[in-house]
Amino acid sequence: MTAQSKGRLIGVGTGPGDPELLTLKAVRALAEADVLAHFAKRGGNGNARAIVEGRLKPGVVELPLHYPVTTEIAKSHDDYKAHILAFYEESAAVVARHLDAGRTVAVLSEGDPLFYGSYMHLHVRLAHLYPTEVVPGVTAMSGCWSATGQPIVQGDDVLTVLPGTMSEFELARRLNDTDAAVIMKVGRNLPKIRRALETTGRLERAFYVERGTMANGATMRLADKADDAAPYFSIVLVPGWLGRPGSVTASGVVL
Amino acid sequence: MTAQSKGRLIGVGTGPGDPELLTLKAVRALAEADVLAHFAKRGGNGNARAIVEGRLKPGVVELPLHYPVTTEIAKSHDDYKAHILAFYEESAAVVARHLDAGRTVAVLSEGDPLFYGSYMHLHVRLAHLYPTEVVPGVTAMSGCWSATGQPIVQGDDVLTVLPGTMSEFELARRLNDTDAAVIMKVGRNLPKIRRALETTGRLERAFYVERGTMANGATMRLADKADDAAPYFSIVLVPGWLGRPGSVTASGVVL
Ligand SMILES: C[S@@+](CC[C@H](N)C(=O)[O-])C[C@H]1O[C@@H](n2cnc3c(N)ncnc32)[C@H](O)[C@@H]1O
Ligand SMILES: C[S@@+](CC[C@H](N)C(=O)[O-])C[C@H]1O[C@@H](n2cnc3c(N)ncnc32)[C@H](O)[C@@H]1O
Repeated sequence: MTAQSKGRLIGVGTGPGDPELLTLKAVRALAEADVLAHFAKRGGNGNARAIVEGRLKPGVVELPLHYPVTTEIAKSHDDYKAHILAFYEESAAVVARHLDAGRTVAVLSEGDPLFYGSYMHLHVRLAHLYPTEVVPGVTAMSGCWSATGQPIVQGDDVLTVLPGTMSEFELARRLNDTDAAVIMKVGRNLPKIRRALETTGRLERAFYVERGTMANGATMRLADKADDAAPYFSIVLVPGWLGRPGSVTASGVVL
Repeated sequence: MTAQSKGRLIGVGTGPGDPELLTLKAVRALAEADVLAHFAKRGGNGNARAIVEGRLKPGVVELPLHYPVTTEIAKSHDDYKAHILAFYEESAAVVARHLDAGRTVAVLSEGDPLFYGSYMHLHVRLAHLYPTEVVPGVTAMSGCWSATGQPIVQGDDVLTVLPGTMSEFELARRLNDTDAAVIMKVGRNLPKIRRALETTGRLERAFYVERGTMANGATMRLADKADDAAPYFSIVLVPGWLGRPGSVTASGVVL
């Protein structure tokens, strides 16, 4: 029996949607990986997998990690948490077997891997046991503010990134206390987000972006969006840099 | 006389330092640009220009935009502001002449262009007048947290991005009210940043990264850094996701 040297774990950020927003480093990691893992809902392959189409090593082993079907259990319920933790443990064990066999495993992550990405659930279980590298990616928020052409922060601005899952009160409190904001996980939270922006006088400044940088993407002022329907891939941006040339102050003055 | 069609303005994010972190889209924009502009201190060419070395169109016109020498004037002084505004106006006028002549002008921006980048000073003056595109880039913070291998935010975490130029009181107040934080513009603000982290009980969790993703980069726990010397390209990270497997709570319990 010969000692098998351990494989390498690579968390690969794919960027927000446009396949051209892959980095050269991500392209190289994908071309070298023996195994390609990605988290996906059962029945779908996910956005990250679509982004890397055509860039994989011939004969790569595909390892889709399908979330357990849990629609019948509320997310806050302990049973849900136990299910999902067991799923992450099991996924890590499957990946570990490939690493033990000396294979390089690339795990896809939409946007940047360590920024609200599910890759992290494997990372915290495996990175201290195997040689590991994280290839950063363009985040969804960068893709989205670039699509709107709105500078997000300049100079001494503070930027706050908020999950749209927070309570309306918390959203409003934090919007009130920042120069610029990004609200992630919009989806069905949009009515609440809209109210929090209105309460804090930020609605006029806010932009809505869905499927940013994707072929079917759209950007608009949130105030101009007639309905509150929003897909999973949507974000709200409140640009800062209020003193910029051409910006309009609260009293309507153009600087 | 034939009507000259206008050229295109492209803000190109170069990523944080590693040339492999350029996106495919940035590489294409650089190969196509007739003119390459970048902001730089007099006497230096800057990090962004170094990152794109070897990727330019043969015969490209280089347009370094040198900041006026203003070391003798305090940044808060009105004269400084007038100087720097005049410099941005003049830079925009020079770029506009190339665009009027039908040339494609790529403006480099370290990291992501619309995230604390100087490209924005051209963007707000020109984007409404010329066809403009912004190519998002991997931000310095993404490059830096990937280099440490520390997940920065997960689930319902709030992330606050703070400029190290703020007062110690403001830094501490905002550190106290967030799950995760990124402190930009560290340099000579490090002693103050360290005190604010200590006051708020965050020092043990904080990471320091200098020249992240560059060949001569370094990462360490801030508590392990013996001195307070920090270059311009340095950042402080306070990771969130406190409930992650393997994380240590304030009372010393390993989850
Ligand atoms: C689990 S987080 C993943 C974030 C990702 N790791 C990143 O670096 O941006 C998913 C959320 O990101 C946002 N998102 C991701 N891609 C997007 C896109 N192309 N356009 C708009 N929002 C997007 C949405 O708010 C979505 O709910
Ligand atoms: C003017 S801002 C530019 C930010 C950039 N546009 C981005 O997207 O991250 C400059 C600050 O970014 C941070 N920075 C930029 N590159 C860095 C690197 N490679 N390592 C550490 N910090 C970096 C430093 O805090 C520096 O003071």
